[in-house]
Amino acid sequence: MTAPLLTEIDHVAIAVEDLDAAIAYYAETFGTTVEHRERVDSDGVEEALLKVADSYIQLLTPTTSSSPVAAFLERRGEGLHHVGYRVDDCAVALRSVQDSGGRVIDETPRPGSRGTTVAFVHPRGAHGTLIELVQE
Amino acid sequence: MTAPLLTEIDHVAIAVEDLDAAIAYYAETFGTTVEHRERVDSDGVEEALLKVADSYIQLLTPTTSSSPVAAFLERRGEGLHHVGYRVDDCAVALRSVQDSGGRVIDETPRPGSRGTTVAFVHPRGAHGTLIELVQE
Repeated sequence: MTAPLLTEIDHVAIAVEDLDAAIAYYAETFGTTVEHRERVDSDGVEEALLKVADSYIQLLTPTTSSSPVAAFLERRGEGLHHVGYRVDDCAVALRSVQDSGGRVIDETPRPGSRGTTVAFVHPRGAHGTLIELVQE
Repeated sequence: MTAPLLTEIDHVAIAVEDLDAAIAYYAETFGTTVEHRERVDSDGVEEALLKVADSYIQLLTPTTSSSPVAAFLERRGEGLHHVGYRVDDCAVALRSVQDSGGRVIDETPRPGSRGTTVAFVHPRGAHGTLIELVQE
């Protein structure tokens, strides 16, 4: 048995064409506010985090045409992109993925947005879901 | 300004081909356990809920070929299907969607799984995301 590793749904990430328009949609429809906004040049994205209890809606838009999010938008259009799970220790969770035969995108944890440490798990081997492990 | 309506990410829903295989993947990789399992014939699905803090990973598989989840799997393969947000009053949240010009799938709240009251918001008009409003 694997010990429980996921302590929270950190965020659901949604790829959008226009970040301001998406922020306005969520604000007008559901009363959400932007808790954090950041351009992550290493990932070619700008993100806005809308707080929901102890989790976030992460709106993501590409900042360059070579961003994976740009490719996603071209292929599928706007919509759910990945899910981030909060973990106590990103390296431990990543090792559990590897030990279980999963395929990873990041071989070791790396810096994420807002000072987090993150690693991505490849959707192949994870029932089609791009999973981000997030250590605060 | 709209008052904040979303009190929690109730669940992220993931469409899978084989419910037992997906349950085993999450158990072996992340140590999750099944909190609830239910066949929802009105939606043509069987679901398993894996608890993560006060939220769930909802694994969904079709029980009939006419299920929308069967169509999703055929079109896109396994992966993120929709996101459920918990609300205090499903009717109030649904009205806010309609008042903001959003397009709904359910014109009025209806019974969901595990005794909830739910309504789905159409991804067109919601930046490509199928959204479920969940009142416990």
